[in-house]
Amino acid sequence: MDRQFDLLLRRPDDPRGDLYDAMRHATIGGGKRLRPLLVHATGRLFGVAADALARVSLAIECIHTYSLIHDDLPMMDDDDMRRGKPTVHKAFDEATAILAGDCLHALAFEILADAATHSDPAVRADLVLELARASGPTGMAGGQMMDLRAQGAGFDLPTVTRLQALKTGALIGCAVESGAILGHVPPEGRTGLRGYARDIGLAFQIADDILDVEGDEEAAGKKLRKDGDRGKETFLSLLGLERAREQAAMLVEQAIDHLHGFGTEADLLRTIARYTLERDR
Amino acid sequence: MDRQFDLLLRRPDDPRGDLYDAMRHATIGGGKRLRPLLVHATGRLFGVAADALARVSLAIECIHTYSLIHDDLPMMDDDDMRRGKPTVHKAFDEATAILAGDCLHALAFEILADAATHSDPAVRADLVLELARASGPTGMAGGQMMDLRAQGAGFDLPTVTRLQALKTGALIGCAVESGAILGHVPPEGRTGLRGYARDIGLAFQIADDILDVEGDEEAAGKKLRKDGDRGKETFLSLLGLERAREQAAMLVEQAIDHLHGFGTEADLLRTIARYTLERDR
Repeated sequence: MDRQFDLLLRRPDDPRGDLYDAMRHATIGGGKRLRPLLVHATGRLFGVAADALARVSLAIECIHTYSLIHDDLPMMDDDDMRRGKPTVHKAFDEATAILAGDCLHALAFEILADAATHSDPAVRADLVLELARASGPTGMAGGQMMDLRAQGAGFDLPTVTRLQALKTGALIGCAVESGAILGHVPPEGRTGLRGYARDIGLAFQIADDILDVEGDEEAAGKKLRKDGDRGKETFLSLLGLERAREQAAMLVEQAIDHLHGFGTEADLLRTIARYTLERDR
Repeated sequence: MDRQFDLLLRRPDDPRGDLYDAMRHATIGGGKRLRPLLVHATGRLFGVAADALARVSLAIECIHTYSLIHDDLPMMDDDDMRRGKPTVHKAFDEATAILAGDCLHALAFEILADAATHSDPAVRADLVLELARASGPTGMAGGQMMDLRAQGAGFDLPTVTRLQALKTGALIGCAVESGAILGHVPPEGRTGLRGYARDIGLAFQIADDILDVEGDEEAAGKKLRKDGDRGKETFLSLLGLERAREQAAMLVEQAIDHLHGFGTEADLLRTIARYTLERDR
């Protein structure tokens, strides 16, 4: 991923230099790369070429990174550290951070629509549609809006579940679906994979809530213990630690069950499902 | 356009209400709608169906509006009024403004990639590619970055020309090219239209610089006389009023010359070229 971002974001020798430096700062050298891993693990099930998977991974990681840059801004979640480095608005300034996010947002769709990603334009248009829906008001950005309104709102479990399904679940789902789109799997053939993605998305978020309380800031590379300070309900605050752990473990088993139609070729997806709980960052 | 935005942005009954209200505030009831007009005027040359032109217009206006919302933020151009109304971060708050911009950005690509826009997926993928390039770091957002660095930088005429070609020219060019893409005109058949768009884009910007100095704030619906205050070079500061007016008139004639291959069916494009200079907002 780092090499791909390095090639994509060659610094021009003009007044846009800082803009590219900011995008490079945010994208190169860090992150779990969970969404790219899901694209590759799913694409492999259907024999998709590695270079198509790499380009789609790059596009989805562009969207994920743009959302981190914007969410970290002072008027949003106000974070100073991300992936063990200063956030973009700290390393540069707020205006550059907003524009770097906007540019990664546009680059994601430029990558997907380019003929180099897939020879079939119907596949490219489908990938764009999937990613746009997953990242807009009915997906990731809509979830972030709900999260901004969560403070002191006393959201109940169904509302927190919906918030997280939008905020983190939609893009995780898009990563899995994109691997299948590249494999020419029609929508009705993706039901199991969609269930898998929904379950690991929620398990991932419950694990995040637990890490926020129990984790190590150095390993996480960002500030923790923020949700409680802000009076936001989370899976942890609503379920308690023991039930949250049980729920996450149950979701991982359920995610793996959704893969019953696949043999050993889906073992990477099964490993990723277990990793969502075992990670320390 | 207002009716289209009203249908696109139906307010959901959940914590995302403000997000939709903010998008509605920014998109409904205002703006010159220059880019939609260019899409329609160009598409008409090639007999493109009106509903396809309407959807592409909506997508490009989503991008234009997202850029206004983000550019108006305090850490960017810091504007309180836009189209005669409070800017989004004034009417709502900065976090909502950032997310409303991000959502309109994603919606633009969702609209273009949807099969309802055009039955041919190759056309849809081309539209996405064109708009992504026009709005990202090599287009609009790159131009805004240059503009942020213009303050006190003493940019020369070629640099200001490049800044404006990116900041406003790229999206104006995209509007014209999109009309041609919908008409299945191959890239090599769009040279004249591309020249037309480049020339009216620059004429439009020179007129903007003149309006910034000579215009009426009420008619413009926004604060004027800002560039001079901020020590930014503009076409006007570099050329002086008389030469700036001459240059703009010359560009309009040149734009109309680019349409020599078309008959009366291009009269709307010719009228738009003249309008770029005659407008009061």
